[in-house]
Amino acid sequence: MNVPHSFSIHARDGAARLGTLAFHRGAVRTPAFMPVGTAATVKAMFPETVRATGADIVLGNTYHLMLRPGAERVAELGGLHRFMNWPRPILTDSGGFQVMSLSSLRKLTEDGVIFRSHLDGSEHRLSPERSVEIQRLLGADITMQLDECVALPCADAEAERAMELSLRWAERSKRAFGSDSSRALFGIVQGGTVPALRLRSAAGLVDIGFDGYAVGGLAVGEPQAVMLETLDVTVPALPADRPRYLMGVGTPEDILLSVMRGIDMFDCVMPTRAGRHGQAYTRRGRINLRNARHADDPRPLDEESDCPAARDYSRAYLHHLIKAGEMLGAMLLTWANVHYYQQLMDGIRAAIAAGRLADHAEAIRRAWAAGDIPPRG
Amino acid sequence: MNVPHSFSIHARDGAARLGTLAFHRGAVRTPAFMPVGTAATVKAMFPETVRATGADIVLGNTYHLMLRPGAERVAELGGLHRFMNWPRPILTDSGGFQVMSLSSLRKLTEDGVIFRSHLDGSEHRLSPERSVEIQRLLGADITMQLDECVALPCADAEAERAMELSLRWAERSKRAFGSDSSRALFGIVQGGTVPALRLRSAAGLVDIGFDGYAVGGLAVGEPQAVMLETLDVTVPALPADRPRYLMGVGTPEDILLSVMRGIDMFDCVMPTRAGRHGQAYTRRGRINLRNARHADDPRPLDEESDCPAARDYSRAYLHHLIKAGEMLGAMLLTWANVHYYQQLMDGIRAAIAAGRLADHAEAIRRAWAAGDIPPRG
Ligand SMILES: [Zn+2]
Ligand SMILES: [Zn+2]
Repeated sequence: MNVPHSFSIHARDGAARLGTLAFHRGAVRTPAFMPVGTAATVKAMFPETVRATGADIVLGNTYHLMLRPGAERVAELGGLHRFMNWPRPILTDSGGFQVMSLSSLRKLTEDGVIFRSHLDGSEHRLSPERSVEIQRLLGADITMQLDECVALPCADAEAERAMELSLRWAERSKRAFGSDSSRALFGIVQGGTVPALRLRSAAGLVDIGFDGYAVGGLAVGEPQAVMLETLDVTVPALPADRPRYLMGVGTPEDILLSVMRGIDMFDCVMPTRAGRHGQAYTRRGRINLRNARHADDPRPLDEESDCPAARDYSRAYLHHLIKAGEMLGAMLLTWANVHYYQQLMDGIRAAIAAGRLADHAEAIRRAWAAGDIPPRG
Repeated sequence: MNVPHSFSIHARDGAARLGTLAFHRGAVRTPAFMPVGTAATVKAMFPETVRATGADIVLGNTYHLMLRPGAERVAELGGLHRFMNWPRPILTDSGGFQVMSLSSLRKLTEDGVIFRSHLDGSEHRLSPERSVEIQRLLGADITMQLDECVALPCADAEAERAMELSLRWAERSKRAFGSDSSRALFGIVQGGTVPALRLRSAAGLVDIGFDGYAVGGLAVGEPQAVMLETLDVTVPALPADRPRYLMGVGTPEDILLSVMRGIDMFDCVMPTRAGRHGQAYTRRGRINLRNARHADDPRPLDEESDCPAARDYSRAYLHHLIKAGEMLGAMLLTWANVHYYQQLMDGIRAAIAAGRLADHAEAIRRAWAAGDIPPRG
């Protein structure tokens, strides 16, 4: 099944692009939102339901999977797709970001990073080569290079050091990845919020040559305006014919504004995490179902939604499930949220195709700003 | 929709009966297993999935629902069926059993029971009349009388006192229920393990006259043999043309042996609770998926099952999900377990129809005894 992957762009609207990223396991319509399946499951969802919301691709986390159940074990069991019963494309991250945020006692060297598992304290190492190997064992359709992601704000010198290290790791990742046209390898632009560093990083990656380009090191606590400014600098420096992925982003508004700056792919834990915490994303913004005002509300989350979770259950019932700590509350809200994100992407894609993204974005933002429909007096 | 409910018996095999309990919301094929939907949800399952396993009816708990979200609130929201998005028949218990087992500071009088909520310590009372009223507010298709259920073993005098009280409450429940032919009211036989008490209880209930008869006060810790002996005494004293419900039972074997003694209906938290604790019920008995022997096992729970949860996911994956504390583990195992219970009932019903229940029971028990298929060396 060594069918080469491909990226084609069907339409443009300003900087936004409508495209298809094709793999032998299926096509990914872009702009795409990838639900996060950290430990080989999009939390609280059946894979069939994830697919039914319109997701073409999900993300798996190298850090979590290498620790449990282990990459070699997943490979022996037939790979991550079979393991998690998701036959469509999967992107795996490199593990670097979560080593930095979740593990303890890490030691960063030129070679890679040594860290202790947050699960049992056992020692592990991750290098650019080992990260690529793990992602191959998992069977990723899109492999991400190992990089070093610094927290923001950050001194310029520190951002530069991490960016240069990430570039050298990019080169090693490319070499380790070799030539496997059935899978894609993405490089990651670093450089903090320093335009010159972002440009050097992008140019360095383009020199090496990747199937796609990610913008990393954003959505790590900085204001939205800073993120957007960094995109304004970075995106034009990336090849027009390759997919662009903004890692770890974001709110529906972050996504909308980033698409308008030329980003094609997104991932974020927000819809799934919010669902487990009683929060719903809807056309009218974010709703806290824990709030007592929903206790007697017979209306569903969104009468106009075609998602059963958003349409077939009253807010009173969702409120009850959350207050009672019932799993079904998390199951329904996660479903509704992932569905909402996919509907958002669907609407964005249709708007690009029709050349009316700006109007569409304005209408979406107006609905968000209007806020939730008040409960019946 | 004041369509009268009905019970018809289509076939007998020994003491076992194949029947249909019909309500305007749908038919219940008997012998029936009712998944438990304590707080208006069969834990970790979508209602559509509960139905897809073959369940015709679910159980709701009066004690939980009266405390949260409250019976009057459920009524205002259109009743329990609409609230939990389960349009088919629902049986509600009387609340008595859980007042005894979950609440604190209870005071039992001739009138009823005063207790404190296990949720917030607030004081509540439950009488036969209030229990019937709550169940009507919920919209139950089958209402259970309030009874007093004593723990076993228990002194005969205590069993007698509780049985006599339950009989007086049965009469008050009947009066409170009035004449509503669209709903059914069941009486509950008490009397501990004393045959004479069970017979007096049954005779007293038959004198009052109920739409169905439950055997209560069993599956409370006594050996299986004691439970079966009590059924051997009690069931023949119940009207042949009315459904018989063994409350809170039980294991697959308990159910099988009780059907062979003339029981038509069951409920139990076992399949759902076990599913949340990494345990699976299968044709080959109960399997603990937490066990490390499953960590590398590519086989599903049961290759021959037509349940996606039992067929489409490896034991290695289920093991991983449980070890990682992922909700999907509980979701899949609960689904597989409820499906297994429904398959068990389906096989039992087919065997009664064919007049070969004894052979069928022997074959089922042989498979359970053979145990799980060992993992591949
Ligand atoms: Zn995020
Ligand atoms: Zn039970």
